[in-house]
Amino acid sequence: MSSKITLRFDLGEERRIGHGKIALLEAIGATGSISAAGRQYGMSYRRAWLLVEELNGMFDEPVVATRNGGRNGGGAELTPRGQRLVRVYREAEAMVAQQARSSLREVERWLAEPAAEAPTA
Amino acid sequence: MSSKITLRFDLGEERRIGHGKIALLEAIGATGSISAAGRQYGMSYRRAWLLVEELNGMFDEPVVATRNGGRNGGGAELTPRGQRLVRVYREAEAMVAQQARSSLREVERWLAEPAAEAPTA
Repeated sequence: MSSKITLRFDLGEERRIGHGKIALLEAIGATGSISAAGRQYGMSYRRAWLLVEELNGMFDEPVVATRNGGRNGGGAELTPRGQRLVRVYREAEAMVAQQARSSLREVERWLAEPAAEAPTA
Repeated sequence: MSSKITLRFDLGEERRIGHGKIALLEAIGATGSISAAGRQYGMSYRRAWLLVEELNGMFDEPVVATRNGGRNGGGAELTPRGQRLVRVYREAEAMVAQQARSSLREVERWLAEPAAEAPTA
């Protein structure tokens, strides 16, 4: 079943954290690279970099630290703040998935046609 | 305090219902008009109409019913299904706001600067 509930933290002043940014952070943590993480989501390096800059500027401490090599080289990793952000978001999401399951199931029953797998070719 | 958590129901196959569509439905219910509802959110009539068509096509019953006058005249109202959709979403949102409050508060404390009111001029 592909249905799910995703969360967005609206922190005022255009500061938003949702599913996409959290997934990018997780991929940076897993790959050690902003460009590799972006590629996982079909994102250009520039787009991934801008999202990281936005996130780093949002808080009083950065969530991603980059190591030597500058914009196009070197590696990247989540700071403790970044790791905590991902954990807080995922925990809230899991709690919500649990709590709001019946809401989602009700809406799902109304769908025009049963959800089908995407064609493979 | 302007921070909040908003929900998105991801129902598969590009079918998504979030804060924006729910707010539009509520405004249609309140104003009896797709164009007036769209205006409340700075949306063109065309944009509002397309969102309504998308929502109506998503489910086995329409969520908005239009009355005579066609695209540019007449009125619009929420069907019982539309009313129920808004209620289910808002109830889930209220439950989540309650449950995930501490997550939001933690992330809020990290913000780079205190959230300020938007300037009035």
